[in-house]
Amino acid sequence: MTYCVGLLLDAGIVMLSDTRTNAGLDNISTYRKMFLFEEPGERVIGILTAGSLSVTQTALARLDEAAKDRSPDAGDSILTAETMLRVAEIVGDTLAEVSSDIASRMTAGAERASASMVVAGQRRGGAMRLFLIYPEGNFIEATRDTPFLQIGEHKYGKPILDRVVRPETSLADAQKAVLLSMDSTLRSNLSVGMPLDLAVIERDACRVTDQRRIEAQDEGFRRMSEAWSQALRDSFQRIEI
Amino acid sequence: MTYCVGLLLDAGIVMLSDTRTNAGLDNISTYRKMFLFEEPGERVIGILTAGSLSVTQTALARLDEAAKDRSPDAGDSILTAETMLRVAEIVGDTLAEVSSDIASRMTAGAERASASMVVAGQRRGGAMRLFLIYPEGNFIEATRDTPFLQIGEHKYGKPILDRVVRPETSLADAQKAVLLSMDSTLRSNLSVGMPLDLAVIERDACRVTDQRRIEAQDEGFRRMSEAWSQALRDSFQRIEI
Repeated sequence: MTYCVGLLLDAGIVMLSDTRTNAGLDNISTYRKMFLFEEPGERVIGILTAGSLSVTQTALARLDEAAKDRSPDAGDSILTAETMLRVAEIVGDTLAEVSSDIASRMTAGAERASASMVVAGQRRGGAMRLFLIYPEGNFIEATRDTPFLQIGEHKYGKPILDRVVRPETSLADAQKAVLLSMDSTLRSNLSVGMPLDLAVIERDACRVTDQRRIEAQDEGFRRMSEAWSQALRDSFQRIEI
Repeated sequence: MTYCVGLLLDAGIVMLSDTRTNAGLDNISTYRKMFLFEEPGERVIGILTAGSLSVTQTALARLDEAAKDRSPDAGDSILTAETMLRVAEIVGDTLAEVSSDIASRMTAGAERASASMVVAGQRRGGAMRLFLIYPEGNFIEATRDTPFLQIGEHKYGKPILDRVVRPETSLADAQKAVLLSMDSTLRSNLSVGMPLDLAVIERDACRVTDQRRIEAQDEGFRRMSEAWSQALRDSFQRIEI
């Protein structure tokens, strides 16, 4: 399983993903689920992935290959598409194509290998946008009413986001919110695991403003996690029924 | 959907359930999902239900009918069984039997109508026990390591329980914990809805010590919910990353 979340705020975009991949309980690995593409100042795109690793790796490889192909007869790619909407379409088409290729090789009756993605970014002169791409390639977009999108094991970490994330939320608070959301998920679901990848894209910067890998032994994350637990317990004691 | 939770504490048992039943988004009703059986001072049993209403209603009707049959050739029932373990077995057998009866009438390929239950209680001289009964009739029991069991839409409300519920938790704190757990679930999932049913069974009382229906407009619940939201937001502001 996986937990990834993307936030679309007035001040910018914040993305967070875990890195645990498992095929059964005795086959656990660490794989990056966050992929950043940028032409600094011109365009920045972040992709988060959840689902079958064979699908997400192949889809990302194809997206990457297409982006590098600058020959005159190449179609548009995520780095050349005119709008972020077109970027979402390209990612959706690639995802659907790969899922269907892999499905055609599987024997009938087998579970379908599928994946979903969060795609966010901005090109110079355009608006920041955030999309959730479903396994079939269709997608939805974040709005002011719904400024965050999650993929994977999303339920444990949703209550805190529902309560604190608004379009006006600052980038600092937004990072805190996604990390606390991840913390709740890590505590409740073993298939979501450290290290974490965090990225921040400031509005109109058109580049990755901040990018960090948070390791299992990260002192800041551990302290924040403990302070939050303590704060929850203290608040709990003070509440009256 | 549904959210029900049962806690097994040193001081007693606390049970909470919602009442929303839905068959599609345009067919929403209120049905009790908490059923209490008692012979005050002798035996008390609480049952919480989740899943197909046709299964849970029929299973409860059969359990109730069997409990009222005091003829000499009647088998044991949840009110006459020698142990709480036997009570769990009876509930499990009834649930499996009803599921299988209903499944046999459905055309092949249809989704199976199934349900799960939480069963808790104590008989005089015995220990308090809490079980989760699976649709197939098998079950697991709460222990000191895992003092709560949930059925239905359990993920949103689990983080708060993980953090504050211990076997030593007082009955007052336990009621607060299950109500806050329900509050998080109500906010995130529309298929879980007010009113709520809350029951408390003090240790060795062998009767329902306290039982309340909490309506949508309940002033105390609304105040608690708002105070908790405020406390979470305040704690969030104080946490440093």
